[in-house]
This record gives sequence, structure tokens and C-alpha cells, in this order.
Amino acid sequence: MADNRVVVYAGPGKVAIENTEFPKLEIPQEVAQGLGIKQAAPHAVILKLVTTNICGSDQHMVRGRTTAPVGQSLGHEITGEIVEIGDDVLFHQVGDICSVPFNIACGRCRMCNEGKTGICLNVNPARAGAAYGYVDMGGWVGGQAEYVMIPFADFNLLKFPDRDAALEKILDLTMLSDIFPTGYHGAYTAGVTTGSTVYVAGAGPVGLAAAYSAQLLGASTVIVGDMNADRLAQAKSFGCEIADLSTGDSLADIIDDILGEPEVDAAVDAVGFEARGHGKDAAEAPATVLNDIMNVSRAGASLGIPGLYVTGDPGAVDDAAKVGQIGVRLGLGWAKSHTFVTGQCPVKQYNRQLMNLILADKAHIAKAVNATTISLDDAAQGYAAFDKGAAQKFVIDPHGMVRA
Amino acid sequence: MADNRVVVYAGPGKVAIENTEFPKLEIPQEVAQGLGIKQAAPHAVILKLVTTNICGSDQHMVRGRTTAPVGQSLGHEITGEIVEIGDDVLFHQVGDICSVPFNIACGRCRMCNEGKTGICLNVNPARAGAAYGYVDMGGWVGGQAEYVMIPFADFNLLKFPDRDAALEKILDLTMLSDIFPTGYHGAYTAGVTTGSTVYVAGAGPVGLAAAYSAQLLGASTVIVGDMNADRLAQAKSFGCEIADLSTGDSLADIIDDILGEPEVDAAVDAVGFEARGHGKDAAEAPATVLNDIMNVSRAGASLGIPGLYVTGDPGAVDDAAKVGQIGVRLGLGWAKSHTFVTGQCPVKQYNRQLMNLILADKAHIAKAVNATTISLDDAAQGYAAFDKGAAQKFVIDPHGMVRA
Amino acid sequence: MADNRVVVYAGPGKVAIENTEFPKLEIPQEVAQGLGIKQAAPHAVILKLVTTNICGSDQHMVRGRTTAPVGQSLGHEITGEIVEIGDDVLFHQVGDICSVPFNIACGRCRMCNEGKTGICLNVNPARAGAAYGYVDMGGWVGGQAEYVMIPFADFNLLKFPDRDAALEKILDLTMLSDIFPTGYHGAYTAGVTTGSTVYVAGAGPVGLAAAYSAQLLGASTVIVGDMNADRLAQAKSFGCEIADLSTGDSLADIIDDILGEPEVDAAVDAVGFEARGHGKDAAEAPATVLNDIMNVSRAGASLGIPGLYVTGDPGAVDDAAKVGQIGVRLGLGWAKSHTFVTGQCPVKQYNRQLMNLILADKAHIAKAVNATTISLDDAAQGYAAFDKGAAQKFVIDPHGMVRA
Amino acid sequence: MADNRVVVYAGPGKVAIENTEFPKLEIPQEVAQGLGIKQAAPHAVILKLVTTNICGSDQHMVRGRTTAPVGQSLGHEITGEIVEIGDDVLFHQVGDICSVPFNIACGRCRMCNEGKTGICLNVNPARAGAAYGYVDMGGWVGGQAEYVMIPFADFNLLKFPDRDAALEKILDLTMLSDIFPTGYHGAYTAGVTTGSTVYVAGAGPVGLAAAYSAQLLGASTVIVGDMNADRLAQAKSFGCEIADLSTGDSLADIIDDILGEPEVDAAVDAVGFEARGHGKDAAEAPATVLNDIMNVSRAGASLGIPGLYVTGDPGAVDDAAKVGQIGVRLGLGWAKSHTFVTGQCPVKQYNRQLMNLILADKAHIAKAVNATTISLDDAAQGYAAFDKGAAQKFVIDPHGMVRA
Repeated sequence: MADNRVVVYAGPGKVAIENTEFPKLEIPQEVAQGLGIKQAAPHAVILKLVTTNICGSDQHMVRGRTTAPVGQSLGHEITGEIVEIGDDVLFHQVGDICSVPFNIACGRCRMCNEGKTGICLNVNPARAGAAYGYVDMGGWVGGQAEYVMIPFADFNLLKFPDRDAALEKILDLTMLSDIFPTGYHGAYTAGVTTGSTVYVAGAGPVGLAAAYSAQLLGASTVIVGDMNADRLAQAKSFGCEIADLSTGDSLADIIDDILGEPEVDAAVDAVGFEARGHGKDAAEAPATVLNDIMNVSRAGASLGIPGLYVTGDPGAVDDAAKVGQIGVRLGLGWAKSHTFVTGQCPVKQYNRQLMNLILADKAHIAKAVNATTISLDDAAQGYAAFDKGAAQKFVIDPHGMVRA
Repeated sequence: MADNRVVVYAGPGKVAIENTEFPKLEIPQEVAQGLGIKQAAPHAVILKLVTTNICGSDQHMVRGRTTAPVGQSLGHEITGEIVEIGDDVLFHQVGDICSVPFNIACGRCRMCNEGKTGICLNVNPARAGAAYGYVDMGGWVGGQAEYVMIPFADFNLLKFPDRDAALEKILDLTMLSDIFPTGYHGAYTAGVTTGSTVYVAGAGPVGLAAAYSAQLLGASTVIVGDMNADRLAQAKSFGCEIADLSTGDSLADIIDDILGEPEVDAAVDAVGFEARGHGKDAAEAPATVLNDIMNVSRAGASLGIPGLYVTGDPGAVDDAAKVGQIGVRLGLGWAKSHTFVTGQCPVKQYNRQLMNLILADKAHIAKAVNATTISLDDAAQGYAAFDKGAAQKFVIDPHGMVRA
Repeated sequence: MADNRVVVYAGPGKVAIENTEFPKLEIPQEVAQGLGIKQAAPHAVILKLVTTNICGSDQHMVRGRTTAPVGQSLGHEITGEIVEIGDDVLFHQVGDICSVPFNIACGRCRMCNEGKTGICLNVNPARAGAAYGYVDMGGWVGGQAEYVMIPFADFNLLKFPDRDAALEKILDLTMLSDIFPTGYHGAYTAGVTTGSTVYVAGAGPVGLAAAYSAQLLGASTVIVGDMNADRLAQAKSFGCEIADLSTGDSLADIIDDILGEPEVDAAVDAVGFEARGHGKDAAEAPATVLNDIMNVSRAGASLGIPGLYVTGDPGAVDDAAKVGQIGVRLGLGWAKSHTFVTGQCPVKQYNRQLMNLILADKAHIAKAVNATTISLDDAAQGYAAFDKGAAQKFVIDPHGMVRA
Repeated sequence: MADNRVVVYAGPGKVAIENTEFPKLEIPQEVAQGLGIKQAAPHAVILKLVTTNICGSDQHMVRGRTTAPVGQSLGHEITGEIVEIGDDVLFHQVGDICSVPFNIACGRCRMCNEGKTGICLNVNPARAGAAYGYVDMGGWVGGQAEYVMIPFADFNLLKFPDRDAALEKILDLTMLSDIFPTGYHGAYTAGVTTGSTVYVAGAGPVGLAAAYSAQLLGASTVIVGDMNADRLAQAKSFGCEIADLSTGDSLADIIDDILGEPEVDAAVDAVGFEARGHGKDAAEAPATVLNDIMNVSRAGASLGIPGLYVTGDPGAVDDAAKVGQIGVRLGLGWAKSHTFVTGQCPVKQYNRQLMNLILADKAHIAKAVNATTISLDDAAQGYAAFDKGAAQKFVIDPHGMVRA
């Protein structure tokens, strides 16, 4: 077989496409050596990418906010067709089209046994949890590419039952690798259920997916807050109320105007540590969103926090934030008996049921997040547009299978 | 009937006993007016105190760390005998001996319906939740007294089935009003279960109750950390391992020495905002304990946080902490997918089952926390000794019923 | 005030309207004496009925299948306006329009504390649980009437926030007293969630409410089975698939045709002990539905069983069934690790959130169950039509407030 | 390597030891062909048995109550040392001593993903779920042997961290493969928690393990019922109360005598379909225990049913029971809102935490069930003694490693 072309980080603000060797059925050397396990991977498959999306969390690297080296491969939102299969892959076949959770998980450790695939103990010598194409996440090659290796394939792959039906819905199904489950996880862990009023902080793709998921979970009203007018319009397009935080108005007042009371039943932080204060020229203020959602959630609420908070942030606004220490108004949440649920979404807990809903034509997530297909060669333009705040979710289509 | 004698705050570092009028079947005027409800309380009873304990949270007021005015009545750990009963108390009788949850709850609002009695919506016009004898908690008269009024008595009272059996175990049963359920809540919400390894920060009465509860929940090893040697000895007395934080050793190292790994399955913060750094002369550092327990808990853990965090703290070490904003290493917890469970213990969720265990002679909480009986007139000495770090839990016995 | 007119059982197949005295703020003598509590009820209110529905479970009595005496008052689906209020009703006012859960509950016992209001310990001396207007359920007067007394009103009443909005949606809101929560409970306890495939046995009002609730809970496909063509058409009207059991086809085959596999993720028994075998002339066979749902549910499923099973059934087909013993294929469920959730729906666990959804215009239950308004004088016709299998839910409007 | 000796069914009432070929890294042909997967098993290991216990469910086969053919290999309670390892076993090594859950599970299907390893979809073409050495459970070779093949080893094996510590506690650890988790599952799914009163039906090894687990879960009182005096004495030996059902006394009365009320909070059926009526000469009556536990459990209880119920029972007392249909008093449970939790214990959900408790010297299950070591050659005597009701749990020690 031929070589492989992969999107890589090429310095602050830049991505490039690099020719690399075709993937092998092997795990990264750093994982094999770090854990003292075999590098050969009879549990793995090679996927030909059908779709592979650009994620907001990729932007942290591309903006130069992390320690990612130039050449770091990118891409963890992967949907593909199996083209090669290891000896111990029993329940998948060449030709299957599958979604891949962005969390790499072994399926064999205590955390995987408990469904906590976001913090698998066997895929990253440095810490719990790994991902494709991400700095400090195990050295796994990224999937914004033509081909990619997927380890522990019987565990990690979600097969679409019917190939034609899958290709027809592929722009919805491609969201199963990350943002649809991640948004759903945010809403679900915030306790959204039948009749809930919900506030979602952030109208990027994850925020929109959280808002859409809150609707699926039966929310009576979903309010989405952001400072970007286009993204707010996107939220409005599928029935959300909006809170325009660029005006500097108090969020509690905006909610009160909508609901008749200044608090919601459940709130989701879909922003994380790169939060800014409110108002047009607000500076970065890493605990803003967290403090906001405590303020506007009722006593007894659970707060879903899929937005990323980091252990170190070299580019942060102050010394405390550089080591991940931020000014949380914890007493406010404590007085309200809040529960805070943090961490990466364990995609496998949700992707099958969301797939079923998409295939039954009852979830239109692509439209909600404004999925926009581009070619692999246009990846750099996609990154740039997304970084400027385009209300779009870019889906790379490396082999022209979507456009076909 | 005669007057009533009540312990009151008498200025920083001081308590006094005041003669007041005998309680009536009426709720505080500020509650009735604030909520626009009737002041007459056919739902209430008058209790003659059998026991009433001094709590660590009373110390915040007595130390002058709050806005409590001189004359503020004290006492929210109440066990008593019914001596008078309202027209709408149907399921309790004069003569019943009962435990009273420190959380005052109406039993009729959405939060009470959900079992969240710590944040009842109908007992405090200023916020969710109320308590007896506490600043900013609704103006309810305290129960370090001879007599006290208990509203919504059919909902709030836990009757001991047999009077003689109750008096025999009264030093255990008196812990049901607060610290035993509060400690249990800490351990339970931290997910302690059969086989867990557990770290409890703080060896005061709540920490000891959390450690004891962790044992009841089936923990394989419980480690208690503190800087007070007497309190650590108390933890050791019922089978806990200890982490002496006065030495300045790393907590993770201490845990590693005990368990063979530097992390536990579950952790409890039984300290709260008055935390200090480690080592002998450590200064106050409000997020220390919280950051500690993130550090030593495994990925996927839930953190039980019964220790009090406040919305405002006039005597705090810095301006941020004065408004309740503290430097939390949130990224650390996020990377480990931690869940943080905060807030007052909803005592009613646990007191009945813990009572059953005490009466079956299977829980000896009085011994674990070193219950020490004193007279009402000795309350001031009890406060002083507790403030100095005595490894004792002081139980006031206003009518000599314990000593009899 | 004037007298009260109440629907009563008048012998097999017959109901009548009786003039009785106006209700008082008193609980039934049999409850007061049986439990040894006060009969005076300062906790109660008198409601003027706004709507009061005929329920399938009323039919058991009217068909003469129970020991209900002639003169037994009927009606437990109650929505009304408060016209009189006891001294200990603090959080409701004269003029409030409220929904009343059919389960009578004290709000003060262990079961109510746990949210299990269907098995309250303090409202029926004979057993756990009570209801208005029902044989062997405590002797509480029924609410198919002009006025009715509601005990423990602060606990039992669900107030509609706005009178005008409530009257506008009254045909939806009237379903909150029983069938909407009961159907929801069936679907919820069957584990229906985002993406589930669901089978609901029975297309009467509870079955339709279960099917509609399954949609609210995010089901991908809901299949409703019955032998009544009109009721099946009703299920189809809001997007359900149907299984026509009058044909004698195998249910598993029907499901296979719809889903491509013969099993669903979750199943609800909305029929209960008066089940019949399949096919046009099928005889009564009390465990048919239960055995059916085990057969067509996947391994690991939970089965929601809101359909009534009784402890004694004098009119049953055989001696075993007369004492409530029926031929269950338990091994089938055991081999599939099924969980069976039985019992009356605890309405209070769901009615608030379903009300919120109705008021947000996101749940149209009246249309789903084909709500049909009739006058109090037409109650007998309503009973007769319902007994004949009309695909309607009859809503009695005693004061012409709906028609206004 | 040498041959393998395995215990097999040799006709009603008889077992024998057969010489067979040494196990290979291959799954059974019927599984490979039935599922259309590879027979080669790089995911498997060969274990040298350290211990392998005789189970009550083996007796069903040996008594001739099943369709097991002569020659059926036996044994699903397996603890062993790895002697050979497949290419895709990454996280275990030759020399590790491990416990093996009796449920064979792939770790890769939807059920395994949800933790429901008792109903794995990929190990038995005939139905969900499989086990070693059991009729109709996939054709996997039994482990009452010298050596045995374990598939999906990284998923199925629970490694003991330290070899010496493991061998010292081996009689406790050997119970992790089945009865300790199974008993715990019964108690846990019955909702046993701090302070519960509990009834366990059956004092065989699973019943004793359920009773012991109920104590670990914090029960205040555990009552065990049986008709076998020796087994009841065994229950008494570790602090249980007993109900001697051979006397014909009413179980509710016996419970009332012990607790002062005729109902418990939680009940476990550790008997299943081979139940008998009460009294000395009681005949087989398959729903007796189930009806009993409904009768003596409080309203709102959950019933844990680890006792086996079958889909067909050729030797049953009547035609209905022969097809698994038994006379359940379902109305009784329905009136009490009971939940019934059935099915095989998913061992992996509990074995790690129970292992931790054993290794911390806090669970002495071997003593509770009276573990008795025998050689492989004495297997037949062990079966015979157990069948006669010996209050012992027989542990086969094929290589003399326990006795050493």
C-alpha cells in the first residue's frame, strides 16, 4: 500500500500536511516501553478515513498554548472503513464502517471495566487516558489523515450496521467520535432530564451539541450563552434561547427575563480554561464560566463540566493559572450543595445509543452544529476559519467519500 | 412552665448562658414575614433537651470569624424529649425521645421531596437551607438550651423506638443529629464501598465520624490525616492508619508507605475553608485540603466535601478568600475526571439507618469520637477545650439525664 | 356551602351520582382509628374540581371484579381549585389550581421520605398505600365529584404557577394526576433512554401515556401492542409503530419485521392481570403480558410493570389466580438477567417535571390519549364507552370550567 | 506437556475423572462456528489450577436434572497460575496467580461494555452468557481439572498482586470465582446497606456468602432460613440469626420474634427452582422461596434473586414447571411495589473489591462457608457429601498447592 498523509502542527497558528509511512499494526513505542508490553498489536485495525473532524481542543495546540512540538500529528475525531485487521480482531471485518471514540482505551483495565474509558490505565505511561493526535496523550498518531491505526479495535470501534445507511447519514454519524457524546455527557452529568431548564455556557460545537443533547434529554428550555453572534444564531436555529454575553448584561438577569427566575435546574460548562470575562473586550479569566454556572444554577444542581481545564498552561494570564490554579468561588457552590462533574467524556458510554437515534432519523446533530465538509488539503483553511469563530464544524473528507 | 436557659455567643472567644422565655409553637418572625406564611406552628413541638453537642462549626461563630451578633443563640445538635405538641403533629407523642437533624426542613418543598433537606426552600428567606442557632440561617433559636422548638416535627423528628434502650445508648444516638450522618455523607458521596482505600482529611469529630463511617461502608483501609497528635491517636484507636501532616512529609509519600501506591480510591475533605498548609507552622491556606485530596485520589474518584466552604469570610488571609474565591487546582481534578460533591449533609437521608445500627449494637460512634458529657453550665469550658484541639466531642446534658 | 355530588358504584356495570354532604377537613374515621391519630385535619384543603378523569382501574370496580360495595365513591384523577384551607397549610392559598397525585401520602413517613409515595405507611391501616375513591384503599372519598377533601395538602398538591396558563392547558395538565406519570414511570423504570427500542403492551390510556413518555425519554422506536384497532390507530397517530395482536401473529415476529431483530431494549406492561391471550377470541390469561415482555426484551433489560396485579381476584379464571397466583415463566426472565419493577407509580416523583414540559408547550399528552371532556351528569356514558374500548380518555368537567 | 485430568458427569449421581488432551489456545468449535469467528485464541491463556470448587449448580447436572450428556466436563470455580499465554495477552504474565469469573465474557460486546458479563453476547451461539463446564453454556471445557483454557484472558482474569500473600489466603480467594460475588450480588441487588434487616433464604454456600456479604454491607441483623440444621449452625457461627423452616412455623412469625416486626428491609433468594415447601417432609414447590420473600419483605423492597430459575426442567413436579412456568404470587409483590432482580451474578463487578477486602484481612469467607480442601481424586466423595447436605464448601486442590 501507499504512504499516508497526515495533518500536523507546524508552529503557532499553522498546520501542514505531511507524508508519513502507512500505519502498522503496532502501538507507539513510548506506550509499549513505558508500560512494558508488546508493541505488536494483533488487536488493532487500519482504518481508511471516511471523515475526520477538526475539534476545538486541537486549537489549543495550534494556537501554541501547549508544549506540542512542531510535527505533532493531529486529529482525534475519526470515522473510517476497515482496510486491515489484526489476528485478534474477532468481531469486525474488512469493509465495516465504524466510528472511533477519541478516547483510546484498552477494554481490559479497571477503569475500562467501570466504563471510564476516558481514563484508561493502559494506553499512556504518563497518566490515565489517551487520545489520537494529541500532545501528552500517549504519542498515538492523529487521524486527520488518509489512514490511521486503531488499537483494541473490537473494544474501540462502533460499527454502523448498514454501509449505505451510514454513508447517507455520515455527517451526523461523524459527530459520534467526540462532540455529540461530549455534549451529551455534559448535559447528562448535569442531570438534565424531562422538564429541566438548562444553561449551556459556550456556543462552539461542543456547546451546541450539549444544547441539542439537552433537548433530546427532554429539557423544557435550553439557554445558550456566548459572545459570538454567529454561534448564538446557530443555537437559535434549533430552538434554543440565547444569552448574549457580549452586552455585559448580567447572566442571571438574562435568564430571569427568559424563565421568570434567575436560576436553571442544570448547567453545562462547554468552555473551560480559556474562558473570558463578559462584555466585548473581556480578558481571559479562567474560572469565569465555572463561577457563572454556580451562580445561575439552583441549589442541589449538578454541574456538567466537559470544558477542558488543564494542569499547566504556560500561556496563562497569571502565575497561579500557569500551574492550573484558578480562583473558584467554591463557597458559592458549597452553599448550594452543588456537585461538579469534570473530565473527558467516556465516549463509549453514549455513542451506540446516539447512533441508534441518528439512524432512526431522530437526531440531526450535523445541522445543529452546522457541519461543513472540506478536503484534506483544505485543513489549514478549516483551522483558520474555526479559530476566527466561524459557526461551523469542519469535517475533513480525505477520500471524497462524503462528497460522492 | 418556667423560663429557658440558652448558650449564646458573647463576643470573640466567649459564650454565655442567657435566660430567655420558654419557646412557643411559632416559627421565627423573619421566616414568617420573609416567606409570607403563618407564624403559628401547629406542626411544631417543644423538646426538653436530653443531649445537645458542641460542633466544630459553632467555633466559626465563637472565634468571631462570622457576622454573628453578640447574643446569637447556639446549638444545632439536638436530642430531646417531647413535652408539648402542636395540633398537626400526628405521628409523635409527648414523652417520645427523638433525634433532630441539624438541617431545618419543611418536608413540603421540591428539595425536601428530593431528599435534599439541607437546602429546603421554605425555612430561610435569605437562601436555601436553615439550621438552629446559626448566623444567617433563618434566625431559629439554638438548642444548647434546656428547651427548644422544633418545626415540622413529624418530618424532622427521628423517634427512638424504645425509651430505655435509647437512654442506654444516648451518647451514640446523640451523634445522629449531625456528625455521624455528616461523616457518613462524606464517605458515602466519596463512593466508599466494599474494599475501598480511603483518605480522610481532618481528625476532628466530623473527620473521625467519616473515618468510622468508611469502615462501616466496608473500606479495606482508612487513612486519617491531621496535624494534631491527640486527634490522630483517637483515629488510631479504632483501627485507622494515620498521616501526620505536622511533619511536612508529602501526603502522597505517606499514603504510598501505607498502601504501596500513592493514591486512594476515595477521599473526604472534613476540614473546609479554615485549612492550613502542611508542617508545624503552616499558615491558613483555604484550598489546601481540596488540592490535597485531588492529588491523592485515583482517576475516576468522587470527592466527598462535607467540610464547610463559605461565600464570604471577613477574616480571610487575602481579598479573594474574603469573598470566598480560593485557588483551586481544578485542572488536576479535571484530568482525573473527578466528581466533587459539596454541601451540608441532608441528615434525614442517613439518620434512621445509622440509628438502627447503633441500636443493634453495631456502631460505636461515641467511642470513636470520644464523647465527653458536660453540664450546661460547663458549656464555656467545653468550647474552650474544643477550640484548643482536645480530641473530644462535648455533649451537653442540660437536665442530668445522661448522668442519671 | 352547598352539598356535594359524587359518582358512585351502583352494582356491576353501573355508576350513579349521589348527593352527599360537603367534605370536611377531616380524614376518614377508619384511618384515624386504625392508626390511632387525630381525625381533624388542619393539613387538608377542600378542592373544587376543575377536572376529574375516568381511569381504567375504576373499571375493575365497576365491572364487579372487586369487593367494592354498592355506594363506593369513585375517582382518583383530580385537578381542582382550593376553596378552603386548614390551619397548617402554609404554602398554598385559596384560589390556587393544583394537580393531586392519585396516591394519598402523608409526607412524614419513611416511605414518603424515600419518595415512595405509592406505599405511604400512614394513610391506610390495612396496608401500605392509599388512593381516593377506591376499594380497600383507606376509605377516602372519591373525586369524581364537585368537591373533594385532600389531606396533607402542602405535600400532595402540585400548584400550577399561573391560573390562566393552567386553564389553557387543562386537558394536558389533568393527566398529571395519574396516567401521564404512570405511563412515564413504566417507561422510566423499564430503563428507556436516548436511542432505546421499546415495546409497550396495551394501548389504553396508560399504555399510550407510556408510549408517549418513551418518546420524551428519547426512544428511537416505540412499538405498541393491543387487539383493539381504534386504540392502535391512536398509538399510530403520534408516531408509534404498532403490533396488532388480534391477528394471532407472534409478537416476536412482528417486532422483527419492524426492527430487524425480535427483541427490544425495554418493555412496559400496561395491561396487568386482566390480560388475555393473543388472537381474536383469546381468553383471559393473567400472566400473558408478563411472559410476552420477557420473551421480547433483550438480555439485561428492565421491565416496567405499571399494569395492576392483585392479591386476590374473586372473578379469576382459576383457583390459583383467585388468590393472585399466576403462571409466570420466571426462568425465561432469569436466564436473561431481567429486572422487574412493579407497583403503583409514585406520582410525585414525576408530576412536577411533566408539568414543566406541558407548560413549555413540549408535551401534548391530551392529544396522545385523545382526551374527551364530558359533564358530571354524563359520567355513566363515559364509563360505558370506555368499557367498550373507546380510544378516548374521558375527562369529567363538573363545573363547566373546561368548556368555558 | 502432559495430558489433562478433568472431572466429568458419569450418569445420574455419578462423577468420574477422565484423561483428556492438554488444553489449547482455541475456543470451542461450536462457539467459533456458531458465531462465525476465528477458533484460534491469541487472547487466551492456559491455567494450572491452584483451586477449583464444587458448586451447588454443578449438582443440578449430577443429579440428572438437566440434559447434560454423560462425559460433560465440570467445574466453573477456577483459580489458577498462568502457564501459557497467547500473543494478544498483554497485561498478564506466565506465573501470575489469578481468579477467573465463572461467567465467560468477551469484554468487547455491548453487554460486557455495560458490565453485564453474565450475559455476554459473544461466547455462546445459543443464548446470552456462558460458563466453563456447564450444559447449554457454550461447550467450554470445565475447570475441575489440572489445566484449563481461559479465553479473553486480559478481560477475564483477576490477578492477585502478590503470589505469597495469595497462597496464604487461597481458601478465601478461591471463593472469588463464584459464590462470594454471587452472594454479594444477591445482597447488593436486594439493596442491603448500612442498618438493613435482611432475610436470606437458603444456607448453602451461596446463601452463607449472601449472609456474610450482607454483614459486610452494614446490615444490622441478618436472618438465614433453611431446613438443614448443620447449615443453620454454620450461619449462626458468624453472627446470623436463623429461621429453622423444618419446624413448619411461619417464617413471618419467626422474623417477628427476632425483630419485633414480621418484615425485613431486604431479602435474598439463594435457593431457586429446586425449592421445597416448609416443614420436614415438604415436597418440591418451585415458587415457594420467591413467594416467601415477597411475604416477609417490606413495601418498597428490592428482592435479590441469585438462586437459579430455569427455562425448562424435565424432572419438574408438574407440566407447567417442566417448561419453567411457576405459580408466582405476583400481586403480592406488586401491592408492595417490589423490584425483582434476577440472573447470574456478573462476577467482574465485585471480585476486585472483595479481593481487596480479603487481602486486607477484613473478609473471612472461607470460614463462613466452611471451606474444606480435597484432592482431585476425591472429587466424587466431595460431590456426594455436598449432595447430602454437608455444611461444607469443597475446594479441590489438584496440584497439592493448598496443602503445601
